[in-house]
Amino acid sequence: MRVIKYPARETWASLLTRPSFDSTSLFETVQKILDDVRFNGDKAVKNYAKLFDKVSIDDLEVTKEEMLEAEKLVTINLKQAIEMARRNIWKFHSEQQQELPEIQTSPGVYCWQKAIAIEKVGLYVPGGTAPLFSTVLMLGIPAQIAECKEVILCTPPNNEGKIHPVVLYAAKVAGIHRIFKIGGTQAIAAMAYGTESVPKVYKIFGPGNQYVTAAKQLVSLRDVAIDMPAGPSEVEVIADDSANPVFVAADLLSQAEHGVDSQSILITVSENLVEPVLEQIELQLIQLPRKDLARKALENSKIIVLKTLEEAVAMTNEYAPEHLIISTRYFMGVAANIVNAGSVFLGNYTPESAGDYASGTNHTLPTNGHAKAYSGVNLDSFVRKVTFQQITQEGLTNLSNAIILMAENEELMAHSNAVKVRLQEEKEVEERLSSHRR
Amino acid sequence: MRVIKYPARETWASLLTRPSFDSTSLFETVQKILDDVRFNGDKAVKNYAKLFDKVSIDDLEVTKEEMLEAEKLVTINLKQAIEMARRNIWKFHSEQQQELPEIQTSPGVYCWQKAIAIEKVGLYVPGGTAPLFSTVLMLGIPAQIAECKEVILCTPPNNEGKIHPVVLYAAKVAGIHRIFKIGGTQAIAAMAYGTESVPKVYKIFGPGNQYVTAAKQLVSLRDVAIDMPAGPSEVEVIADDSANPVFVAADLLSQAEHGVDSQSILITVSENLVEPVLEQIELQLIQLPRKDLARKALENSKIIVLKTLEEAVAMTNEYAPEHLIISTRYFMGVAANIVNAGSVFLGNYTPESAGDYASGTNHTLPTNGHAKAYSGVNLDSFVRKVTFQQITQEGLTNLSNAIILMAENEELMAHSNAVKVRLQEEKEVEERLSSHRR
Repeated sequence: MRVIKYPARETWASLLTRPSFDSTSLFETVQKILDDVRFNGDKAVKNYAKLFDKVSIDDLEVTKEEMLEAEKLVTINLKQAIEMARRNIWKFHSEQQQELPEIQTSPGVYCWQKAIAIEKVGLYVPGGTAPLFSTVLMLGIPAQIAECKEVILCTPPNNEGKIHPVVLYAAKVAGIHRIFKIGGTQAIAAMAYGTESVPKVYKIFGPGNQYVTAAKQLVSLRDVAIDMPAGPSEVEVIADDSANPVFVAADLLSQAEHGVDSQSILITVSENLVEPVLEQIELQLIQLPRKDLARKALENSKIIVLKTLEEAVAMTNEYAPEHLIISTRYFMGVAANIVNAGSVFLGNYTPESAGDYASGTNHTLPTNGHAKAYSGVNLDSFVRKVTFQQITQEGLTNLSNAIILMAENEELMAHSNAVKVRLQEEKEVEERLSSHRR
Repeated sequence: MRVIKYPARETWASLLTRPSFDSTSLFETVQKILDDVRFNGDKAVKNYAKLFDKVSIDDLEVTKEEMLEAEKLVTINLKQAIEMARRNIWKFHSEQQQELPEIQTSPGVYCWQKAIAIEKVGLYVPGGTAPLFSTVLMLGIPAQIAECKEVILCTPPNNEGKIHPVVLYAAKVAGIHRIFKIGGTQAIAAMAYGTESVPKVYKIFGPGNQYVTAAKQLVSLRDVAIDMPAGPSEVEVIADDSANPVFVAADLLSQAEHGVDSQSILITVSENLVEPVLEQIELQLIQLPRKDLARKALENSKIIVLKTLEEAVAMTNEYAPEHLIISTRYFMGVAANIVNAGSVFLGNYTPESAGDYASGTNHTLPTNGHAKAYSGVNLDSFVRKVTFQQITQEGLTNLSNAIILMAENEELMAHSNAVKVRLQEEKEVEERLSSHRR
């Protein structure tokens, strides 16, 4: 890790530059696969499974028998761990359901907002050596709380055509309706356009490699919504002399083990912390199975020493980390000034791994500085806020002058007319009534 | 307007096809302008103003003097109308601020979500013959409620280098901080990348022509968030025999006058409504200044007669209109079953123009079927939901088994280690304490 002491303010921007990750160079390749699946459906999907995953799949959908078999293969201990995670994720996300009251904005003008679940959502979970079943929970449980009608999951099979049993078990726990053995670009295409086997969805969620990211970007231009732009994972730790170097090193490493392009940043206002953290990293690193990968990621990583916590906060808000751990004596005061971060972990006993798995918060978060404009996945990601309004005759009369004047100043006479014909009718009814009375 | 009576279910999809709107064909042209502004800043912006807007601009930013001058030019009546709209928009959007409680998901595990304003947002309002000051209010007021720190507006100047006074006045009313005389692709580029005059923003909002839309799509791939994908405006009316053909015709026309690619659809369960609506359209159309444009839009428009309201609701949910007017006797029952729409207007006295200007709801809404996955602009569009968590030593001990087991099953040993080092330390402290006691 590079150590940078007391950098000048004008060097911050270049210090905080992330390893570049630009999937636009893949667009041409990816677009061809998207088009192929769009027009050739399952046949194309199966061809790519042969080509990329070296596996021949007859039935793309996971069967009930496979689900039952998977459930038997998961240990009771792991099931209990998943249940604890599920319960906490459910608790935290179900609190995000908020009924907004109907408002009378003017007399007779009633407006309200209703949260309505997106009917069809597609979740993508990458394959690889390790089964990322925690992501199945993080995406599936909020979809279940939102009551999305159709929740499907695509994930690549291994070279025997099977999906890891823990992934299937987690999908069951999260209430996912249908699971398909499809990976990569072809999975995104299948969910965006639909095939004979896979239903078309309205929004696609989940992480993936550069091909998956490029595919999500391309389909989001016209055809389907996506959760957020993706990039390599990252953590930042803000520390003072109350931080424990053993814990700080462990947290930096737990980010570094994700991949060579992961980034770990320590911003400390205590110069004394630097050496012990570096020592601890070496000590802990050699014991990790993924040590080679983590060591490479650490090459992108930095320890930055600053004078004050005010500077640390300013630098953090400029960086906008996906994960932020605040290991300082008065962490609540520091947290109050954080405006740009995906998820924030406070104090010495709140490691990022708690939020990654079991505390209840979501782990699908904006990377690459996108925390400046995007939220992490939350219940709102699975609903739309639809507005409704009902206006009485009297209410429309109250608003009419404003609407007519504004519409006519925008030179939209038919907009004005839609109000005038209604006022006119009211007047006519009144005249009829009064002539009747005479 | 084409009239289609009792179409078979399998023809619905083709009936509901929208006029195609694909900005990807413009990507190459637009990308060149984006890059030019990115690397050459104000100079490039000013060149494009000369080229496209036929105007030479020295100072891109609107001055205080121009603001004062504009305020004098707006009539008191229009100011009062704008004030009524402002107040209602403010009321409706400020109710969307919701404090979520801190939750204890497990003993000692405290999680909460905080809504934090996006610091820098950029609003785009197109030029053209009519000043779209209502859009300034619809985008500016929620940004003001959210307390975004920097809210800027770009809008093209006329060929005298001036911006319409009502647009400037509305910007003042909506609390917009800085206004720039920049239009089209160059405006989107200036806000996405920043120039000498224009600050870079984190999210761009607002409507525009196909070039602006393409520019927003391209910058959103990597550099900045956008409100939503844009397309031509559209309205759908669901009617039964309680609907007033005069009102229905006026509502269909108020959509049609927006542009030749606008779409108006009437779904009626009363065949008797068709002739009177067609007659009324002809009667009202000839009085409109924009009649030629509206007549062209009506060529894309349809009257569809269905047997039941259940079918009407099913067809509506398939179409997912930007605006939906429900003119039926029991409109609340119909509304309860609507899942895909941007904004819904209920009853005979709730024209779309009320929501376009003054009732308080937002008029920046998902078009082109995007209502299936996107919300219209609302307060949430200007904030991020950031999660925070604080875990006590006891709390982490409670979660530890779950985290360690899940992390190790995902083969992420450093994630597990971040918990283990903390438990270890706790044990050591306890041992030290107990040896001390001995």
